[in-house]
Amino acid sequence: MIFSSDNWAGAHPLIAESLVKAASGYASAYGTSDLDKAVEKKLSEVFEREVAVFFVGTGTAANSLAIASANRPGGHTFCHTHAHVNADECGAPEFFAHGSRLAPVDGLLGRMDPEHLKTAIRRTQSGGVHGGQPMAITLTQATEAGTVYSLDEIQAISAIARSNDLPLHMDGARFANALVTLGATPAEMTWMSGIDLLSFGGTKNGCWCAEALILFDTAKAREMSYLRKRSAQLFSKSRFIAAQFDAYLQDELWLDLARHANAMAAKLAEGIARSNSARLAWPSGSNELFVILNAETAKTLQDKGAVFYDWPAPQEVAATMDSDEGLYRLVTSFATTQDDVGQFLATC
Amino acid sequence: MIFSSDNWAGAHPLIAESLVKAASGYASAYGTSDLDKAVEKKLSEVFEREVAVFFVGTGTAANSLAIASANRPGGHTFCHTHAHVNADECGAPEFFAHGSRLAPVDGLLGRMDPEHLKTAIRRTQSGGVHGGQPMAITLTQATEAGTVYSLDEIQAISAIARSNDLPLHMDGARFANALVTLGATPAEMTWMSGIDLLSFGGTKNGCWCAEALILFDTAKAREMSYLRKRSAQLFSKSRFIAAQFDAYLQDELWLDLARHANAMAAKLAEGIARSNSARLAWPSGSNELFVILNAETAKTLQDKGAVFYDWPAPQEVAATMDSDEGLYRLVTSFATTQDDVGQFLATC
Amino acid sequence: MIFSSDNWAGAHPLIAESLVKAASGYASAYGTSDLDKAVEKKLSEVFEREVAVFFVGTGTAANSLAIASANRPGGHTFCHTHAHVNADECGAPEFFAHGSRLAPVDGLLGRMDPEHLKTAIRRTQSGGVHGGQPMAITLTQATEAGTVYSLDEIQAISAIARSNDLPLHMDGARFANALVTLGATPAEMTWMSGIDLLSFGGTKNGCWCAEALILFDTAKAREMSYLRKRSAQLFSKSRFIAAQFDAYLQDELWLDLARHANAMAAKLAEGIARSNSARLAWPSGSNELFVILNAETAKTLQDKGAVFYDWPAPQEVAATMDSDEGLYRLVTSFATTQDDVGQFLATC
Amino acid sequence: MIFSSDNWAGAHPLIAESLVKAASGYASAYGTSDLDKAVEKKLSEVFEREVAVFFVGTGTAANSLAIASANRPGGHTFCHTHAHVNADECGAPEFFAHGSRLAPVDGLLGRMDPEHLKTAIRRTQSGGVHGGQPMAITLTQATEAGTVYSLDEIQAISAIARSNDLPLHMDGARFANALVTLGATPAEMTWMSGIDLLSFGGTKNGCWCAEALILFDTAKAREMSYLRKRSAQLFSKSRFIAAQFDAYLQDELWLDLARHANAMAAKLAEGIARSNSARLAWPSGSNELFVILNAETAKTLQDKGAVFYDWPAPQEVAATMDSDEGLYRLVTSFATTQDDVGQFLATC
Repeated sequence: MIFSSDNWAGAHPLIAESLVKAASGYASAYGTSDLDKAVEKKLSEVFEREVAVFFVGTGTAANSLAIASANRPGGHTFCHTHAHVNADECGAPEFFAHGSRLAPVDGLLGRMDPEHLKTAIRRTQSGGVHGGQPMAITLTQATEAGTVYSLDEIQAISAIARSNDLPLHMDGARFANALVTLGATPAEMTWMSGIDLLSFGGTKNGCWCAEALILFDTAKAREMSYLRKRSAQLFSKSRFIAAQFDAYLQDELWLDLARHANAMAAKLAEGIARSNSARLAWPSGSNELFVILNAETAKTLQDKGAVFYDWPAPQEVAATMDSDEGLYRLVTSFATTQDDVGQFLATC
Repeated sequence: MIFSSDNWAGAHPLIAESLVKAASGYASAYGTSDLDKAVEKKLSEVFEREVAVFFVGTGTAANSLAIASANRPGGHTFCHTHAHVNADECGAPEFFAHGSRLAPVDGLLGRMDPEHLKTAIRRTQSGGVHGGQPMAITLTQATEAGTVYSLDEIQAISAIARSNDLPLHMDGARFANALVTLGATPAEMTWMSGIDLLSFGGTKNGCWCAEALILFDTAKAREMSYLRKRSAQLFSKSRFIAAQFDAYLQDELWLDLARHANAMAAKLAEGIARSNSARLAWPSGSNELFVILNAETAKTLQDKGAVFYDWPAPQEVAATMDSDEGLYRLVTSFATTQDDVGQFLATC
Repeated sequence: MIFSSDNWAGAHPLIAESLVKAASGYASAYGTSDLDKAVEKKLSEVFEREVAVFFVGTGTAANSLAIASANRPGGHTFCHTHAHVNADECGAPEFFAHGSRLAPVDGLLGRMDPEHLKTAIRRTQSGGVHGGQPMAITLTQATEAGTVYSLDEIQAISAIARSNDLPLHMDGARFANALVTLGATPAEMTWMSGIDLLSFGGTKNGCWCAEALILFDTAKAREMSYLRKRSAQLFSKSRFIAAQFDAYLQDELWLDLARHANAMAAKLAEGIARSNSARLAWPSGSNELFVILNAETAKTLQDKGAVFYDWPAPQEVAATMDSDEGLYRLVTSFATTQDDVGQFLATC
Repeated sequence: MIFSSDNWAGAHPLIAESLVKAASGYASAYGTSDLDKAVEKKLSEVFEREVAVFFVGTGTAANSLAIASANRPGGHTFCHTHAHVNADECGAPEFFAHGSRLAPVDGLLGRMDPEHLKTAIRRTQSGGVHGGQPMAITLTQATEAGTVYSLDEIQAISAIARSNDLPLHMDGARFANALVTLGATPAEMTWMSGIDLLSFGGTKNGCWCAEALILFDTAKAREMSYLRKRSAQLFSKSRFIAAQFDAYLQDELWLDLARHANAMAAKLAEGIARSNSARLAWPSGSNELFVILNAETAKTLQDKGAVFYDWPAPQEVAATMDSDEGLYRLVTSFATTQDDVGQFLATC
């Protein structure tokens, strides 16, 4: 009953198998091998457009490079207050982008409120040179709150990006989970909706270490190749990242894994909706659930081996909670079983 | 007949097997798993001392973090002119260390000349605040020229480091290859000889992606943990790096692999010494050979499938070469076979 | 009737005279002249303690160097939301400190609320390596809201700094104005109250360009000398900054100028308190007033030549304002005359 | 007899007078005053072209901002080995440009050798992403060796810049000294010869602190305004820099001062040419002379009050020196008198 994070899971057997296959033989280094090239081509097919692909080691690296590529002195990158870039990356985006700033924007359930975003951009512009300048926007899909931006909501953000001439980045650490929820195509959820750069995450969804920064404007690729190398993110045996993505994209494995994780979350949600000792804090659309449990139930679950984290409650949720209740996050993954879910529900 | 680089090889079967084993089950993320801890402990045993271990994705990352941890404004990090940090990392060390400078020091065959090093340090100190200040020294073992610093030579450098109060870093991308050449223990070749930080490379010697920055002063570990995360080098599924090192260090696999690679290089060297159409540019002590071939021989070899790179000839070597000769680098690895060597020698 | 900013004033005649005197003759460069040394000594007397003095060109430079000297990877520097470093320096502190972050803390009228500060520090500490780490605290005296921290209030902040082992910086762009308001000594308002570094501003109070970063811990001076030079803030003809401070500190000129500016502000405040068409938004303690005017009065004043800026109203103030009212900032300086004040009051 | 540096002189009386004039009255801050605008316009006239002007506090700032504006990841800025940016700015250019590298190029007497420059650029380009990429070229006019690039020589460099698509910066800390030597117009020595950015120095030639970064491509002005503010180089009372330049440019004062300094150097050179105990190390073309003195003469001069620095001798010069001889630098300025020169020559 591991619901702590999708990065506690290992790697899917097909991914592991692909790694083993890649282990033998020689391949040219630093992303130049046939396998690297084949996977890059495959990604262009997946996105129905020629894309530039940069394999990197971590989601933080992909996000930070995306932001760094938009760099302007005194620049502000607008993101949700609880976005991973802002809350969980130890300042990597600011380091990669030479001290430019992340400008947090509020919004319910992990999604930036377009009006707040506009206000934040205007405020940055109002101070002349003293207040700095807008530089980029980044949104997270699925969000840190487990919710998913609809295509319309993404387009509302991208319209603001366009009208302010700002590049729009999507942190897709849980890209597949959002995609299958929306039932959209990768193209529809990205460049067709105005996304310029994408952190395409495979790690949380069954790879061990497979992240790709995808540029929909291939003219930016040359500069990014130096940015990546300069950031120590160019892997000599890059083929092993390619090998993971190769299996990941084969026969829609990536979508199947996301569908499974989401289905397990949905099942958990259904059970919790029927429970007397637990309730959902808000509806989710991916593989993350936020659940209110009383202390006793939480303890019982943990005693029985369930692993999950408590979570800071947003004010509007805290207002609905009793003093002995807490907010908890449950994350499912490709590895979550019906059994895990059943055991959890049996207790709460 | 792939002699282009040891990073063209894949992963040793035992490493691949360990990756597969790690793929199943859950493990806590970000370097906190039991396996991560066990490998860290194992490394303390290997080095006969409590060490702080930081797994990272690339050798460039390990080197750059080491340098960054010594950061001083206007700082100069002394390295050999041809060191990987200076010649092949696209400015990553300067980026990680906020614009501090790499100060190249000459020396024959990849080894910094202690007298040149002293002069370079003195020169930096002579300009007052305008000229900046010494900050660190980094040496490469084995060197980019395939040579190996003796323990005495390392200690000559570390004496200079001590007397100038500078931390001394070793870039050990080919640590194992140098170690087996010297017949020294890991402790002797590092902290017992005055090394403060070590980039302990596994990738070139049979892992797919296993690099560790090792601090012999564990008091520096806290700050390094933030430096690593801030540089996007903390892997969520860190256990997969641990798993590689686990197999790598098991039953001295790492030393066996290095001995094999070195032996293949030695065999090549012996054959070349007997050849009429090839000669060694200088004696090597690791898995890299530098060979002078005439154009025809080089072409014939390449036509038969040998892959190797030409290399810029140092002035003193160029002076000994005919106009139709070129300098070439041959690198062996764990994967090099007697057959590869035999085929090569049969042609030259 | 120039109330736009104290930096619209020129230089006091005694400062200008001192510049002229310094113009003739030779002096050794880069802060090594006798005059430089004499002024540094004088500052040690002013602060009743040996201090290390770094002349720089702008307040932004002094603030940014102070923060840079505390640099930690993933570091957070806590400051008031409206602090100059956060709102008006185009990211200079983040740039100087290599991408470390400014963490805004709320509090009424420009002063950080100690409880909010504690919460913000705790929050930073709670995320492990992902959330970064506390690095420094900076407060502004007098604040951007024209208010002044009492000695007790400074000490409440410095107690938090101490218990978290964080250096405490004071942005003293209007140091003298606050000092004469409190009737404290420079020592009392700084190191005796736990301040570690001070941006000691002369520019706004009658110099043309005289800012000094003062370190109460002289052991930090060596590193700062490199930080300053590396930031292009070491002036070759540094004696001209020294000359300004020489006159500034002579016979308490600096305190007289601040007393005058404050007195002019107080006179304005008294008049406004009696006015029907204007009222103070909040009580001030320095040379900045925040005034609520209706649109008509504001326009009349501007038509008569008064220059002043409108200001974003804090929520609690906005709640008290009519729809045709606006919030405005009035700043007095050494150059403000009784006449200016009289003319202004005659209209409102 | 102060020949240590032109920055040991103070400010010319007309400059000081202009500062006094600027001291009274109000002016809008941060470079927006009428005087700022007037001087900017005047500079456009001086350069016979619309230019964008950025006043800054130090030459190091102007140089570093110029380089920063060309920033590329892994970038190399080519400069002469002994250029001020490389030897005397404590890494400010690398800090401002986020860790990009200065790539030293040799050449006789302070001037980059075009062939060496081409080789250095080619070398940078040859390493793929690992070796970084060319980013900018900077030359110093007059050079650190007191020599002056002819227009042809500047154009030889700018042709290389053009063909490699690199911006070309001129460090003009001693711009006026070079200009009057060449008898060229400011336009001819800069944009007409392919210069893109100029550090236009006034400090060494009679101002106290007046440096301007001049962009010949005004489209780059917007970004530079943020770069300058972000680097803490935007002065609130900017009018005082403008006031210095106002007097400096009035009635060709700047050229007269440079002519005087150069004439004093020429007089010194003539006398030294006739001396038995001193000789010129090489012919100079500006206000810096490099002189070989035997130890006794040097000591006698210093005993009589002459101040000058010894200088590291280039190899080809050292080869011509006796063991009791040293190389010394003599710098004249607007403040040097015939008397100073006469006294010096009377002794050597």
